[in-house]
Amino acid sequence: MAVYTDVPDDELARFLSQYDLGEVLSLKGIAEGVENSNFILHTSAGQFILTLYEKRVARGDLPFFLGLMEHVADAGVTCPLPVKDRHGRVLGELCNRAASIVTFLEGISVRRPKVAHCGAVGTALAQFHAAGWDFTLCRANTLSITGWDTLVQEAGPRADGVREGLAQLITDEAAWLKEHWPKNLPSGIIHADLFPDNVLFLGEQVSGLIDFYFACNDLLAYDLAICLNAWCFEPDHAFNVTKGRALLSAYHAERPLREEEIAAFPLLARGAALRFLLTRLVDWLSVPPGALVRPKDPLEYFRKLRFHQTAQNIEAYGWGA
Amino acid sequence: MAVYTDVPDDELARFLSQYDLGEVLSLKGIAEGVENSNFILHTSAGQFILTLYEKRVARGDLPFFLGLMEHVADAGVTCPLPVKDRHGRVLGELCNRAASIVTFLEGISVRRPKVAHCGAVGTALAQFHAAGWDFTLCRANTLSITGWDTLVQEAGPRADGVREGLAQLITDEAAWLKEHWPKNLPSGIIHADLFPDNVLFLGEQVSGLIDFYFACNDLLAYDLAICLNAWCFEPDHAFNVTKGRALLSAYHAERPLREEEIAAFPLLARGAALRFLLTRLVDWLSVPPGALVRPKDPLEYFRKLRFHQTAQNIEAYGWGA
Repeated sequence: MAVYTDVPDDELARFLSQYDLGEVLSLKGIAEGVENSNFILHTSAGQFILTLYEKRVARGDLPFFLGLMEHVADAGVTCPLPVKDRHGRVLGELCNRAASIVTFLEGISVRRPKVAHCGAVGTALAQFHAAGWDFTLCRANTLSITGWDTLVQEAGPRADGVREGLAQLITDEAAWLKEHWPKNLPSGIIHADLFPDNVLFLGEQVSGLIDFYFACNDLLAYDLAICLNAWCFEPDHAFNVTKGRALLSAYHAERPLREEEIAAFPLLARGAALRFLLTRLVDWLSVPPGALVRPKDPLEYFRKLRFHQTAQNIEAYGWGA
Repeated sequence: MAVYTDVPDDELARFLSQYDLGEVLSLKGIAEGVENSNFILHTSAGQFILTLYEKRVARGDLPFFLGLMEHVADAGVTCPLPVKDRHGRVLGELCNRAASIVTFLEGISVRRPKVAHCGAVGTALAQFHAAGWDFTLCRANTLSITGWDTLVQEAGPRADGVREGLAQLITDEAAWLKEHWPKNLPSGIIHADLFPDNVLFLGEQVSGLIDFYFACNDLLAYDLAICLNAWCFEPDHAFNVTKGRALLSAYHAERPLREEEIAAFPLLARGAALRFLLTRLVDWLSVPPGALVRPKDPLEYFRKLRFHQTAQNIEAYGWGA
């Protein structure tokens, strides 16, 4: 949650002279996203989000992310639409950084999703998957099964400082998942980070999906498993079966899950929990002493993983009930 | 530049139910202000700034700040106007913090002010001083002459770690200013922090003054001296006489400076430079090692102070040229 780069008014004016967006009326840095600097830009043409890409985002990936937003928006998904400059480009340069402008979406993210929100997200996710099926660019998921070994090593034995026995648990879990990971499930473009922060609502209606900077090619049902982890647990980490049912059935109504996806679901849910446990653990362990930034609690995902390890089948998540 | 408090959608809805502002359309935390959490709030009634007051702002001062904004806005100063709830209150409570809603102002702050901007600020400052003359609440300036001793002691001998000899210089300067500080200059409500960050422009026209959280009762010409320090030096710390002239003459055209104010001006400029040197020094020395926040360079104001110490009279600032 930060703005890493300050944009002087004169450099902004120079940048905007390449666009047909009229006069600048205001620019406010917003505390959103952890990777990039984001601003609400108001011009006589309307309201937009200006993003400056900081070093953690690979520049080579930007055409994928921006192209994806444009592609799925064309297919009817409500998401930010990249704005083209007069030469038809969606990427420019501002303050020595790659920069883009996208349309601003109304809506507010929900902190404590209700059952109706979980259902709405299930529908939106399935529509997003459908919209992405004919997108031609590819991006590997570096934070999926192939990336976990690196993360396990990064966390290493220091994981035991967070919780006794955690180092062994993540090593074993990663090994087990690698051995059993399904190979022939439907794959396509996944959002990979569709947490409540990244879904805007007006009332109980989804008004937009945002933050596509983890999007990649992977198993579609794995994306659903990420959502289940992010949306269907209570603040005390108890799984809410009613929310699980709402999410799964709404998704299934829009894109019917195949038998193999249904069978693999508990395993995918474990994978999703491990992925966020590992990245949070690495973030947690890399914070310098005395820093003001407090990373997210990795143990939240340890508890979710424990729950998934006990799930015999998809019925444990409210499916078919 | 931070948002310290996250506002959940349901708590926001409860808070807004006391206002006649329609439906929430969006809420974005903005990276503005260092003391409070600020958000751009968009509702069906328009765009607003929602502020949650964090602990550094004394709650007892809030009626002064909000009352002042309302008072000077009524007198024609373009500044945020506090929005009243259905009971006529401008202060409420949200997430266990005092909270207010003010109107949103268009405009953008200028990073590298031109001569025309300095003139426009001079006019706006004089209009603000005129608008504040019949405001009845009072707030002492804790960062003026009476507060400097405390700051000098806080920085203490560690100031020499920032620059050799600085501890002695600030001690001597504070003592000298205390001895020579003028007693009978016109006083009233001053903004006390009218830096380029806090003035919005559309082109070369001032579209708004913001951030009144240092406002207090003090010498009016001291406020002008603060502006001169903030607006009329170049990035290499050289004083720009043309900008100085523009600021002083525009102010003088709107509120004519008295002979005593003109005579005291170089001393007031020294005082203003010392004030920002001291607070920046204390901030600089209080940063924990390894912290991600980088405070502003205190030596910028050391150099400005050095310049003012050589000024024989107000002509050194472009006056009357």
